Amino acid sequence: MSEDVEIIDTVSVIATKRDGGELTDAQIDWVIDRYTHSDPGAGPSVADEQMSALLMAIFLRGMSRRETARWTQAMIDSGRRMDFSGLRRSGRRLVTVDKHSTGGVGDKITLPLAPLVASFGVAVPQLSGRGLGHTGGTLDKLESIPGWRADVSAAEMIAQLERVGAVVCAAGGDLAPADRRLYALRDVTGTVESIPLVASSIMSKKIAEGTGALVLDVKTGSGAFLKSEQDSRELAETMVWLGERAGVATRALITDMSTPLGRTAGNALEVAESLEVLAGGGPPDVVELTIALAREMLDAAGRPDADPARHLANGAAMDTWREMILAQGGDPDAPLPTARHTEEVTASQDGVVTRVDALSVGVGAWRLGAGRALPGETVQAEAGVVLHAKPGERVRVGDPLFTMHTQTPERFAAARAVLASAVTVGEDSPRTTPLIIDRVTVGA
Amino acid sequence: MSEDVEIIDTVSVIATKRDGGELTDAQIDWVIDRYTHSDPGAGPSVADEQMSALLMAIFLRGMSRRETARWTQAMIDSGRRMDFSGLRRSGRRLVTVDKHSTGGVGDKITLPLAPLVASFGVAVPQLSGRGLGHTGGTLDKLESIPGWRADVSAAEMIAQLERVGAVVCAAGGDLAPADRRLYALRDVTGTVESIPLVASSIMSKKIAEGTGALVLDVKTGSGAFLKSEQDSRELAETMVWLGERAGVATRALITDMSTPLGRTAGNALEVAESLEVLAGGGPPDVVELTIALAREMLDAAGRPDADPARHLANGAAMDTWREMILAQGGDPDAPLPTARHTEEVTASQDGVVTRVDALSVGVGAWRLGAGRALPGETVQAEAGVVLHAKPGERVRVGDPLFTMHTQTPERFAAARAVLASAVTVGEDSPRTTPLIIDRVTVGA
Repeated sequence: MSEDVEIIDTVSVIATKRDGGELTDAQIDWVIDRYTHSDPGAGPSVADEQMSALLMAIFLRGMSRRETARWTQAMIDSGRRMDFSGLRRSGRRLVTVDKHSTGGVGDKITLPLAPLVASFGVAVPQLSGRGLGHTGGTLDKLESIPGWRADVSAAEMIAQLERVGAVVCAAGGDLAPADRRLYALRDVTGTVESIPLVASSIMSKKIAEGTGALVLDVKTGSGAFLKSEQDSRELAETMVWLGERAGVATRALITDMSTPLGRTAGNALEVAESLEVLAGGGPPDVVELTIALAREMLDAAGRPDADPARHLANGAAMDTWREMILAQGGDPDAPLPTARHTEEVTASQDGVVTRVDALSVGVGAWRLGAGRALPGETVQAEAGVVLHAKPGERVRVGDPLFTMHTQTPERFAAARAVLASAVTVGEDSPRTTPLIIDRVTVGA
Repeated sequence: MSEDVEIIDTVSVIATKRDGGELTDAQIDWVIDRYTHSDPGAGPSVADEQMSALLMAIFLRGMSRRETARWTQAMIDSGRRMDFSGLRRSGRRLVTVDKHSTGGVGDKITLPLAPLVASFGVAVPQLSGRGLGHTGGTLDKLESIPGWRADVSAAEMIAQLERVGAVVCAAGGDLAPADRRLYALRDVTGTVESIPLVASSIMSKKIAEGTGALVLDVKTGSGAFLKSEQDSRELAETMVWLGERAGVATRALITDMSTPLGRTAGNALEVAESLEVLAGGGPPDVVELTIALAREMLDAAGRPDADPARHLANGAAMDTWREMILAQGGDPDAPLPTARHTEEVTASQDGVVTRVDALSVGVGAWRLGAGRALPGETVQAEAGVVLHAKPGERVRVGDPLFTMHTQTPERFAAARAVLASAVTVGEDSPRTTPLIIDRVTVGA
């Protein structure tokens, strides 16, 4: 039936990728458009079961850079694009820069980072999400601050960026709506961990968001969704390439997520730890990564000489934090909620902590109520895990390894089951691995 | 979350196959059962989009023999099994034997074959389907006989088998219902041409049907859905293995489908050609394959010395045909419907026909109205193609190559477009290839 081609039909698009071929631009545009906009008057649409077969074929056959770029563009074109090019403060144009993390346990970096970068007169429009599974969501963390709200209109967002400089809020439903549907489908069909699909999902939202520059924190290790450094590097390189190609100055750090960041995993607990960092203290790993990402963001925004450590020390970042929280209805002076119930997990032998497994800690916090299993579930602001021992530290039998926090003590047993094996105690100090493993730029 | 396993969930089943693993028996049973029976009270069900992702993973990763056998068994267990072990004629037990063809252009063999084999006192319960795409369905062909009906109850089927010996009818919806749903899903998701999925689809229905013996006609070549001999052989070997494992004496012939069988493709046209064979004439290739398959069926039924050619010559097969048609309401003496409109496609050069492409002829007949694009569409009994030149025959410019038959003459142009290039005319006689390429038995 070779006379019939040039008409795009869904089965032939699936078969092309299934057989290892490259999809044409027209095939990609058609399949994304017909999947997102199921107008009965507009010809055949692409059904969920057809898209999931295509996603599995993409998962197993891959996509070329060209295909990934077109797939990303088609998802951007499925919705609205924001535009921050008109941002002004005191008559001068404001540069925008955003950060995205692929997600990790205890990753509260956005909280100190956004106000820190904004304190240098750079605008940080941080569209964030809620958590699912073992990694927490930035919005869930901020919502533990009394009064704070994630939903901000586009006009409010622009006003806050011009006045305060930083806004962390929920992305509107009209940014890359194709990605929203595709992500929900991938979640139930075993097609999440595909590098071209992850890269296009993240970058379609970030490019549609309209940021001028973007710094990516690509996690690697047991608590990251990509466990191998090679996969994380390929993801970082793909995303940097996609961003630069779309006119967004993009770079990435590859950072370790084999052990949790800082000493807390949970919503209010992570806010409290972020406040320590903004006050000039806090755990060294959180401070190190906050400063490294701030440097990249400020450099990408044309401020290579800015010194972020100074603004943590002198209170400038904290001042911007307070304004940012106040602008979204939050009370920066209100006490954070604390759990009604706590229990400890203690060491069963003497020695040196050689490993604190990030995934296990994330699952522990999740089981205590800090995360959700399904979209739309509520989370406990108070729940989570405090880590008392990090790799390299000595412990003795009976020393606390974790304090578990929850509002619902029936959750302790399940959390304890996973936390008890999260820590490995040995004789010798562990080989120290760097937190920041590599830096990926477009030339690299 | 390794503590949580042993609970089967759909995403983990998909991920197992996606990553190249083998599915366990429990995983296969669970996924087929939950896909077929979506009882809201019975826990999570498997959605179409999840099954299609799994099917694509199976398509690309394959299934082992063990997995394929279990998948087949799970589909059998999704519905009812028939039982012909009680069939009797004149107090003696009747042996049953069935034939299945993987489908080809001009493949009307079931029509003369079923009564031919039955004329030897063997019961032939032939559950058949309707055509989709370029290969015709046996039921569509028989429905061109005035009065004949495909729907027969189980009791009527048994009575007809005991009295006449042959029945060709529609399979009930309760035989392997999982296969019915899976086939419809595979059709729209580009997952049809997978050897383990094809083998389990065919064999689940044939085993559930309860036949004692089975002969498979596995087609290979341009008009077959598996184009390569290697794939066809693997399919044949898999199906023979599945059948024997389930206690059905199974063997297969691998037969050529690069050129159409006989000189007709279309419904009433193929019935007319089948009547020629039953009358002792007909095209040599149709006669050869009918006799070869009849020998296999009779041998499998314990009648190795029976001589099928004799029952074509002496009218015994025709007598059984007439009884079989009458038993299902058909009038064997009524004239077959003929097309209101015919047109010829003629040769544009002198020479020897080196090739008549089966797929092109199938598509031509389909475009004339003999087949359907979607399940449930009606077909024209009268439409189809008559072939005037087969490979090895000489033609001169202007000689007819095909006569096109249709009730709707606006279809001629599209059919002519594909038929005009279906025939290749050259200088030298083509290399003759055997019709029956190989025979596959359980020991082979």
